[in-house]
Amino acid sequence: MTESSTEPAWKTAITEVQPNHVRVRGYDIAELMGNVSFGQAVYLILRGEMPDEKVGRLMEAMLVATIDHGATPPSALAARTVASTGATLSASVAAGIASINDHHGGAIEQCARQLGHIVNQQKETGESLDRVAEAVLNDLKGADQRMAGFGHRIHDHDPRTARLFELAEQTGIDNSHIQAAKAVENVFSAGGKNLPINVDGAMGAILADLGFEPAMMNGLFMIARLPGLVAHVHEEKTRQKPMRRIDPVNHSYDGPAARSLPANS
Amino acid sequence: MTESSTEPAWKTAITEVQPNHVRVRGYDIAELMGNVSFGQAVYLILRGEMPDEKVGRLMEAMLVATIDHGATPPSALAARTVASTGATLSASVAAGIASINDHHGGAIEQCARQLGHIVNQQKETGESLDRVAEAVLNDLKGADQRMAGFGHRIHDHDPRTARLFELAEQTGIDNSHIQAAKAVENVFSAGGKNLPINVDGAMGAILADLGFEPAMMNGLFMIARLPGLVAHVHEEKTRQKPMRRIDPVNHSYDGPAARSLPANS
Amino acid sequence: MTESSTEPAWKTAITEVQPNHVRVRGYDIAELMGNVSFGQAVYLILRGEMPDEKVGRLMEAMLVATIDHGATPPSALAARTVASTGATLSASVAAGIASINDHHGGAIEQCARQLGHIVNQQKETGESLDRVAEAVLNDLKGADQRMAGFGHRIHDHDPRTARLFELAEQTGIDNSHIQAAKAVENVFSAGGKNLPINVDGAMGAILADLGFEPAMMNGLFMIARLPGLVAHVHEEKTRQKPMRRIDPVNHSYDGPAARSLPANS
Amino acid sequence: MTESSTEPAWKTAITEVQPNHVRVRGYDIAELMGNVSFGQAVYLILRGEMPDEKVGRLMEAMLVATIDHGATPPSALAARTVASTGATLSASVAAGIASINDHHGGAIEQCARQLGHIVNQQKETGESLDRVAEAVLNDLKGADQRMAGFGHRIHDHDPRTARLFELAEQTGIDNSHIQAAKAVENVFSAGGKNLPINVDGAMGAILADLGFEPAMMNGLFMIARLPGLVAHVHEEKTRQKPMRRIDPVNHSYDGPAARSLPANS
Repeated sequence: MTESSTEPAWKTAITEVQPNHVRVRGYDIAELMGNVSFGQAVYLILRGEMPDEKVGRLMEAMLVATIDHGATPPSALAARTVASTGATLSASVAAGIASINDHHGGAIEQCARQLGHIVNQQKETGESLDRVAEAVLNDLKGADQRMAGFGHRIHDHDPRTARLFELAEQTGIDNSHIQAAKAVENVFSAGGKNLPINVDGAMGAILADLGFEPAMMNGLFMIARLPGLVAHVHEEKTRQKPMRRIDPVNHSYDGPAARSLPANS
Repeated sequence: MTESSTEPAWKTAITEVQPNHVRVRGYDIAELMGNVSFGQAVYLILRGEMPDEKVGRLMEAMLVATIDHGATPPSALAARTVASTGATLSASVAAGIASINDHHGGAIEQCARQLGHIVNQQKETGESLDRVAEAVLNDLKGADQRMAGFGHRIHDHDPRTARLFELAEQTGIDNSHIQAAKAVENVFSAGGKNLPINVDGAMGAILADLGFEPAMMNGLFMIARLPGLVAHVHEEKTRQKPMRRIDPVNHSYDGPAARSLPANS
Repeated sequence: MTESSTEPAWKTAITEVQPNHVRVRGYDIAELMGNVSFGQAVYLILRGEMPDEKVGRLMEAMLVATIDHGATPPSALAARTVASTGATLSASVAAGIASINDHHGGAIEQCARQLGHIVNQQKETGESLDRVAEAVLNDLKGADQRMAGFGHRIHDHDPRTARLFELAEQTGIDNSHIQAAKAVENVFSAGGKNLPINVDGAMGAILADLGFEPAMMNGLFMIARLPGLVAHVHEEKTRQKPMRRIDPVNHSYDGPAARSLPANS
Repeated sequence: MTESSTEPAWKTAITEVQPNHVRVRGYDIAELMGNVSFGQAVYLILRGEMPDEKVGRLMEAMLVATIDHGATPPSALAARTVASTGATLSASVAAGIASINDHHGGAIEQCARQLGHIVNQQKETGESLDRVAEAVLNDLKGADQRMAGFGHRIHDHDPRTARLFELAEQTGIDNSHIQAAKAVENVFSAGGKNLPINVDGAMGAILADLGFEPAMMNGLFMIARLPGLVAHVHEEKTRQKPMRRIDPVNHSYDGPAARSLPANS
């Protein structure tokens, strides 16, 4: 209890809190505010380094891309079900976050790992990406597994995916996982299957190209989806009666009609 | 089961999902990506209307302002404690979110309500803001309650607060709650107390001036803090042994040294 | 850091852990095992004193009474929805527990408080219980509130309620809240309404007669319902496909047919 | 929407709810109340069949054995940390439940699986249990893994374990996993290590002998620990100030002094 009591019990490398200073990964938050985007700050706190503005813009586009997907995903249903019992906002949203797992959002990480395998195989073998992708897909099929991040039960041509790839291209980052994803699409297409990469797969490819660890990718999905969960819980609490039985499918949208951004926005 | 089965059981006004279109409050997400900031998208999904770029920048500054506050707040400790048992990323982060309540983040909402009371009293009585603030503070004191959002146990002059007010001023929004906050500071100061508005109080004032409902404000705090929670859980899982007893105070920072943004960032 | 470091930072009166001894409220757990029922142990840890066997049997009957109510209550639906995403058993069950709030299980506490009000009014005024109950119900009606714990959307004559009262009578405990509940039934009946006390109301009455604080009563409901939640999550994980959309109403029971305990059980 | 709408969307084999009847695995709850113990009801809902009274008594002893272990386990700390922010009872308890995972409670399941391996190896090889146990422990050592459920950082001779085995013996159930556990103790002892089976290991052995699936065993731990979590949250809310920093080690017990059950209890 003498010397040992002055040695801190454990260490953290995320945020330093001192009187009148809060520094994330070394940067004073007061300096970051207004000077970097939230997308840059998210990258910084998760990766440890400050990305440039273009990468920040790509991060923001990914966060916007998955901000919500209606009331049908299990995260929205779980959050609304808990809210319906009179739970607080935070307890309800927490149930939504707890729903983001292998089968909900998990395709981001799984696709990133599978594309990473294709990228590595291509480097090792020196063969064409399409040929490597074909071999990997055959191996998956043989093992009765499926490629994550391709195809969607609602969207057969999701415009969010093309937009993400377009923005990724503008950043000039390494794009080896994106190329691997396109090779997979080619193989599916050559086999007569229309299984385009979906928004989860595109995020997996881009996050892998940015250097994120797969184990952290579902965290990005949580960050992106939180505003949607807050909106659903707030709507449930203010618009619906408590203890209702929430039909997961049979509901419809009655918000503002389709509209566009002003031309110069 | 004839006509009634075609009528949707319930309605939501947040997001419309159709094949190849996901529209938040009427805007197609694919169009938002790269064209609006995440801060604008957060405002849109919570309020229903698209704010201009300046308000989006202010939203982003608020999100950056509270992205993390080290390992001592209960949300970080709860998330790390749960992670330490071998829980998944999502279950651990959910415990952190469930910790955001009246006593953690709640000062944003409470301060907004109290400042709103001052703003209303000023409108009704026509008296000076300082005089109204003094009366309200006296009432609180008489009821053995305290003004939320002023003073901090670590920071006596938090630079994040000044920065937020500076950015709010640049947007040109109505600033009646910010003025009320300054009146409260004046009254404390005249009474010999150094109780400057803190970052929670500043967010409460600004969010109220932006028109957010108080009941939704803790949601903003959750959105802002989520990246910090993901970072803490990931660090706990990758850097610490499982089932450790986490000292809430006796730990220190060993990340990058203090550093500044490049001049032109 | 000298003397103060030897003084424990805080104290707890629940369980003492010493090498080879774990004592709950003073009783060594090894001695309790096999000698007291779980119902007695639950009462002990929550109230601080060991009840006799009869009260333990009543506690167990209440725990059995609410062990499950099928897949429709929000706690079961929330737990299954989270489980369906690939969550762990504990994260799924936690979502179920987080659903036990004012509108789900809360009638136990609300009814206990309202019956307590009738009991107190009767003591103060000396009037008959039926007359006091009538006045309290009129007050509630005037305030546009309703008496909790009476009536049920499925059961109009729930045999669990009669059984609980029968077992409570056998213990010989004070029964003032049970009497108040019967007075409420009388008033409803005299007014032509068939609103018998339901299982939540009966538990509220009995727990109040046993001396439990209302704020702890929902905890009893959580203890009772946990086995049901574990069963639902396990069934969801082993019998259903992941990421299904769970219909809260349109499902049916296909387990063992109705059966009875053997005569001498 | 014609025929299909009359076919239930999915099925459950746990509980049948009909007007005035709630049947768990076929038994009407009203009949179970007062006639079977909660331990029997827990076994019934998890396993599908009603155990006899002796097994029910063993179930109750296991539930009592792990009802609490003080304020230091992560489930208690997580629940108290969340409670300290002003969370509801259910949200706080849920955080405690979410802490029951591989490293907290998980030894029950891991030990059951490892003992099951010894039991199976013994059947296949026909060698003595001690020899098989030795071989399995050597394999674990070679794979840099450890046997779960043996040894404890606080208790070197936990009386709860002996008590559980004594009660198990009284039921006359198959005891092959208990025998395997004793063989493991023998091997450790012969190697000069004092690593007696702990309460987690004993529960794993007994639950395996009772025929519980390993994947469900942590659910038993949750059921047992819930009353402890409710007690901790209630104490935190009523005895401590909000937003305190909870020292996980430096606290002490100030409840009733050690006491014994009355002789004839």
